Amino acid sequence: MNNKQTPWDYRYAQRTQRMKGSAIRELLKITEQPDIISFGGGLPAPDLFPLEEFKRACIYVLDHEGEKALQYGSTEGYKPLREMISRHTNRLGINVNVDNILITSGSQQALDLLGKIFINRGDRILVESPTYLGALQAWNAYGAEYVTVPMDEHGMITEYLEEALRTGPKFIYALPNFQNPTGSTLGLERRKQLVALAEQYGVPIIEDDPYGQLRYEGEDLPGINLLDSQTRVKNGSYTGNVIYLSTFSKILAPGIRLAWVIAPDTVIRKMTLAKQGTDLHTSTFNQIIAHEVSQHGFLDRHVKVIQETYRIRRDVMLESLEEHMPDGVSWTHPEGGLFLWATLPEQLNTTELMPDAIREKVAYVSGEAFHPNGGGTNTMRLNFSCMKPDKINEGIQRLGRVFKTKLME
Amino acid sequence: MNNKQTPWDYRYAQRTQRMKGSAIRELLKITEQPDIISFGGGLPAPDLFPLEEFKRACIYVLDHEGEKALQYGSTEGYKPLREMISRHTNRLGINVNVDNILITSGSQQALDLLGKIFINRGDRILVESPTYLGALQAWNAYGAEYVTVPMDEHGMITEYLEEALRTGPKFIYALPNFQNPTGSTLGLERRKQLVALAEQYGVPIIEDDPYGQLRYEGEDLPGINLLDSQTRVKNGSYTGNVIYLSTFSKILAPGIRLAWVIAPDTVIRKMTLAKQGTDLHTSTFNQIIAHEVSQHGFLDRHVKVIQETYRIRRDVMLESLEEHMPDGVSWTHPEGGLFLWATLPEQLNTTELMPDAIREKVAYVSGEAFHPNGGGTNTMRLNFSCMKPDKINEGIQRLGRVFKTKLME
Repeated sequence: MNNKQTPWDYRYAQRTQRMKGSAIRELLKITEQPDIISFGGGLPAPDLFPLEEFKRACIYVLDHEGEKALQYGSTEGYKPLREMISRHTNRLGINVNVDNILITSGSQQALDLLGKIFINRGDRILVESPTYLGALQAWNAYGAEYVTVPMDEHGMITEYLEEALRTGPKFIYALPNFQNPTGSTLGLERRKQLVALAEQYGVPIIEDDPYGQLRYEGEDLPGINLLDSQTRVKNGSYTGNVIYLSTFSKILAPGIRLAWVIAPDTVIRKMTLAKQGTDLHTSTFNQIIAHEVSQHGFLDRHVKVIQETYRIRRDVMLESLEEHMPDGVSWTHPEGGLFLWATLPEQLNTTELMPDAIREKVAYVSGEAFHPNGGGTNTMRLNFSCMKPDKINEGIQRLGRVFKTKLME
Repeated sequence: MNNKQTPWDYRYAQRTQRMKGSAIRELLKITEQPDIISFGGGLPAPDLFPLEEFKRACIYVLDHEGEKALQYGSTEGYKPLREMISRHTNRLGINVNVDNILITSGSQQALDLLGKIFINRGDRILVESPTYLGALQAWNAYGAEYVTVPMDEHGMITEYLEEALRTGPKFIYALPNFQNPTGSTLGLERRKQLVALAEQYGVPIIEDDPYGQLRYEGEDLPGINLLDSQTRVKNGSYTGNVIYLSTFSKILAPGIRLAWVIAPDTVIRKMTLAKQGTDLHTSTFNQIIAHEVSQHGFLDRHVKVIQETYRIRRDVMLESLEEHMPDGVSWTHPEGGLFLWATLPEQLNTTELMPDAIREKVAYVSGEAFHPNGGGTNTMRLNFSCMKPDKINEGIQRLGRVFKTKLME
C-alpha cells in the first residue's frame, strides 16, 4: 500500500466503471457564478416557491402531528399523501388505489428502484433518442444496454418502434409530455401506436411524466397509462402494462425530494422491498408537509401560476431565438414543460462551443449526453423556466453571438 | 397474458429473488395496534423530539433561505452541514474536511451506496453475527455472501477474526458501539486487534456508528477510524482504511432521513456518482433545517437529555428482566444505544413464540434474522428507548409470563 491509495481504491465493483457524472450537474457547478446566464439546469423558478404556505404547513404539522412527522414511517409512504395522489389519478380517469402507489425520494429514486428490480446486466432498454440523462445514469449502474428510437417534434417516431421492439427490450421508457430534453410531445396517434405495439410485443412501458401538468397551449392528451388502462383495471386496482412516474418537484418544490410511482400492486410490492434496502423510506416530515401544503385545492391553483409564468418565459425564449439566432439554427416549440431543444448546423459541435459560451457568460447543456448510443453533437437543451424574461432575452442574444462568430470562422 | 399477470411479472431481475422484507418492518405493522407493548422497533422516543426547535428552524429557514431550501441542491450535501459534521469529527480527534463527507438519506442509503460501488455478485463481506439487518438487506441486492465472526458481551470475538479474514472478504462491517442488535460494545483491546488484523490482511473496514453518542455509563472508547487514522491523515484530508457512518436519526429525528459518511475523498467521489443516479441528492430542506436546529450547541444539550432518558429506560428494562424472567434466560447489559439482547434456553424458539407474545400484547424481534448464516433461534432483540418506564415494566412482565408458560409445557 503506498501513501496515496487506500485498500478501498482497489476494491470497486465492476459496475462502478459505468458510473459517470452527469454533464449537467458538473455544469451546474461552473454556472453557479452569478453573472452567468444559465439555460443549463432543469431548475424550477425559485421565485414561485410557495414559501408562506410551507411555513404555515410546517407550523401546523409540528403543532399537530410533530411526533409522527419526525419519526420513522412506512416504506410505501404516508398514507394520506398516497390517498391524495390516488384521488388525483382517478380524476384523470385512471382507476388506482393506494396499493398501486409508492412514494419515492424524487423520480430519480423511482428510476433506480426500477433498474434494481428489473434490469439484469446486458438487458436492452428501449429509449427515445435523445432521452432523459438521469434514467441512463440510474440504469447504467445495473448494466443496461439501450435500443433507441429517434425523436422529432412530435415525440418518438413510432414507425421505427417495431424494429426496435424486435430486439427484445425488457421495457420501453417514454416521456410523452414535453420531453426532457427535447420539449416535444408525443401525438395522440403515436400514443395509440406505442400502446398497441407494446401490447403486441408483450413489452411493458415506463411512462415518465414530470411535466404533464405544465401545459401552456393546446389540449391535454391522454396518458399512455390511460390509453392502456382502459382495458386493464380490475376491482379498482390498476393492473396495467404501464408504470407511471410523476413528481412534486415541478409543481411544488424539488428540495423536498418527493415523487410517486403508479404501478400494478405486484410491482409496487417489489419496489417497496427494494426501497427498504435502499433508504428505508422517504422523509416522513416532507411527506406530511407536502400533504398539508396541498390541502384546499392549493396545488391546482399553484399549477396555474406556474403555467402562466413559464408560458411567458417560453414565449420570450422563442421570440429571442427568432431574433438572435443565425440561419441554419432550428428549435422545438414546446407546448409545456421546462425545455426546448435547438439544433445547429451540422458543422457546429455544442460540446466544443461550450468554452466560448462560458466566456460570453451564458451556458446550455450539450445534446450529446442525452444520446445513449451517440449522435446529437450539434444539438443543445435550453431551459426557460428558471430565469426571468430579461435574462432569457439577454442570454439568447449572447448565445446567438457565439454561434454567429463560430459560423464566420 | 392472463387476467392476473402483467408483462412486468415475468421480467424481474435475478437480484430481486434475494430481496426479502425486513422481519422488523413487517412486525412494526402488526404492532401498530395501540394496546401492544412493542420492544420490536428501533424507534427513538418521540416524546423527546425537539418540536419547538424544529418549528423555530422552519420559520427561520423559510424566511431567510427559503428559495435555496426548496430548490435542487448538490449531491454531496449542504456545505454548512458538512462543515458542521467536519468540526464535530475533528473534535473527536479525526482530521477530516468537507471532501471526506457525504450526506445520505439515512444510513440505510449509505449502506446501499457502499454495496453499489464495492460489491460484485459473490463477494464475501465479513460481518458480526448477529449483525444489523439493514446492512444484509442492502447488500443482498448486490449478491453479497457473508463470512461471520461471533459476538459476545464485548462485541466481535476477535480471536475468530483472522480465520475469517483468510477467506478474502471484500471488507469488514462492524458496529463497535452498543451494537444493533446485541447492545454490546467492542472492548479497547479488541478494537486494536481489529485495526491491526485488518491492516495486516489489507482488508478495509466499514464502521457503522449510529449510537456512539448515546452512552449511559463508562468511558467513551476511541472509534475504529480514530485508532486507524492516527497514522493515516494527510494534508488535512482523511485517507484511512475505515469508512465511518453515522446519523441524525438517533440524536435528532429519523423522519428527516439524514445521515453522513466519512471516507477517503476518492471513495466519497465514487459514492457521490452512485448517489447521483440513485436519488440526485438528499432533501435540501431537511439538511438546512437540521443545520439550523443544531446551532448554538443545541445538539450537545439535546444528546444529554436523550442519554438521561434512555439510561432510565434501560435500567427499568434491566430491573424488570431481573424480576420477571424465568431461570435460564440471560441478557446483555448495554452501556448505551437502543437495544439489549436476550438469550432463552436452547429449546425455545423466539420465532415460534411470537404468536404467544402477540396474544399477550407484547412484541419483540426474533434474533434469527440478524444471523446471515443461520443460528440464534433462541435469541431476541429488545428495544428500550421508545417506551415509557411503566410500559417497559409491564411489557417485560408479560414476556416473562409467555416464556414461563412455554417452559412449563
